[in-house]
Parts: sequence; structure tokens; C-alpha cells
Amino acid sequence: MSERPETGVVNLNAKFDLFHDRWQPRVIARLNDYQFKVVRVEGDFVWHEHPDTDEAFLVLEGTLRIDLPDGSVSVGPGELYVVPKGVRHKPFAEAEVKLLIVEPEGVVNTGGEGGALTAEGDRWI
Amino acid sequence: MSERPETGVVNLNAKFDLFHDRWQPRVIARLNDYQFKVVRVEGDFVWHEHPDTDEAFLVLEGTLRIDLPDGSVSVGPGELYVVPKGVRHKPFAEAEVKLLIVEPEGVVNTGGEGGALTAEGDRWI
Repeated sequence: MSERPETGVVNLNAKFDLFHDRWQPRVIARLNDYQFKVVRVEGDFVWHEHPDTDEAFLVLEGTLRIDLPDGSVSVGPGELYVVPKGVRHKPFAEAEVKLLIVEPEGVVNTGGEGGALTAEGDRWI
Repeated sequence: MSERPETGVVNLNAKFDLFHDRWQPRVIARLNDYQFKVVRVEGDFVWHEHPDTDEAFLVLEGTLRIDLPDGSVSVGPGELYVVPKGVRHKPFAEAEVKLLIVEPEGVVNTGGEGGALTAEGDRWI
């Protein structure tokens, strides 16, 4: 497992103030072998899936659309959506969205798709 | 594992509107074998620990104090705190606090302490 910083109390807005790029999650806390990540997203992501894990999205600001094989869901501020394991999905944000993601350590944001939006793993802030 | 309701998009405030008791977490979503729970807390809880797991608290409204063996932390709205596995802690809220908890399925709110504030397991709403 990666280095575990001494996190203490984590203020989400203070963490968001530390970066302004999109689609590049930062790890802010660990829960056993799971991680809490914050990320700013805007525009289109890539279709992908995570074959081994569910993935939780809690929207903090903005409205996230998640396209799914049989439609889409709209997730607004204070709303939580869990993409089930193995389900293909494509996040989309017409305007910037601030998200909290919860998922196991080691999950790659683009699944197995790769590409320019693939984030480096384990970027703690 | 317990029955998994079809959760879809979960609005946290809508879930809070469904109950008004304190210290009785409701499960609102599952992430693999972890659960998201919402709970209203006010006053003193009991000292306890979870010997097998970390426990994450995200404060949505109010200010939560968590007493720890060597002091306490104050967790306000939009702040996250992870109580490490095995660390004794006692939540306290001078006024009502709305919390989101993330922890593995099957964790009992009072650890091994029991008592009147012990919640029934797996109350989905």
C-alpha cells in the first residue's frame, strides 16, 4: 500500500483550492484499503468500466451526468450514485463539477481504456 | 450479505427527511462490502472502538467533536475524519449534526460496548 499521510481532519473545500485541473483525482483520506478522492470534472470523459469494483460518486457542486448502457443518471449536489462493478459508464459535466469519489486503492480512473485522461495513481494532497 | 435494494441516485437530504431519531444510522447505499449510512447525532455517545476497521465520518451539517485517547478533533460541515482501526473514540454533538458514515457492512455503532444507543444492524432507507 502507498504511504499513508497523517490526514487528521480533512476540509474538502481546502483540498479543492489546491488544484484546478480536471479529471485528475487527488487522494485525501484512506479508509482501510479504500480511498477518498476529490476531483474536478468538466466536459466528456471516456466510456470505461471497473471489472472488480463498484465506484461511488458524491457530488459536492454542480450536476454530473453519468451515461450508462441503458440510459443515464443525473447526480446533483448532495447526491450519491454508485456505479456497479463491471458496468460501463461515461461521466459528463456541462459545467464544472466537484466530486468526492470512494473506491478501493489502485482503481484507475479510465478502467482499462487508457488515453489522455488517465490519471496518475495515488496522488495525495 | 443483506438484501441490496436498487438504490439509483440517492439524495442525502431526502433520506434525512425520513427519520428524526438520533444515533440510529440508516444505510443508503452499498459499495462492494462497504456501506454508506446517514445518521443524526446530538449529545454524548459512548466510548468505543472498532477493532477490525477504520471508520469515516463526513459532516454534512453541524459540528461534531470526536474525543480520542489523546485529545479531540472538531469536524465541521464539509469535513472528513477517519477514526483509525482500534482507536477508542466518543462522538459528541452540542447541537444536532447530520453525518455520512462510510464503513464495512456489519460494523456496530457502539463497537463492543453495547448499551441503549446500540443501533439495529442494516436499516436501509
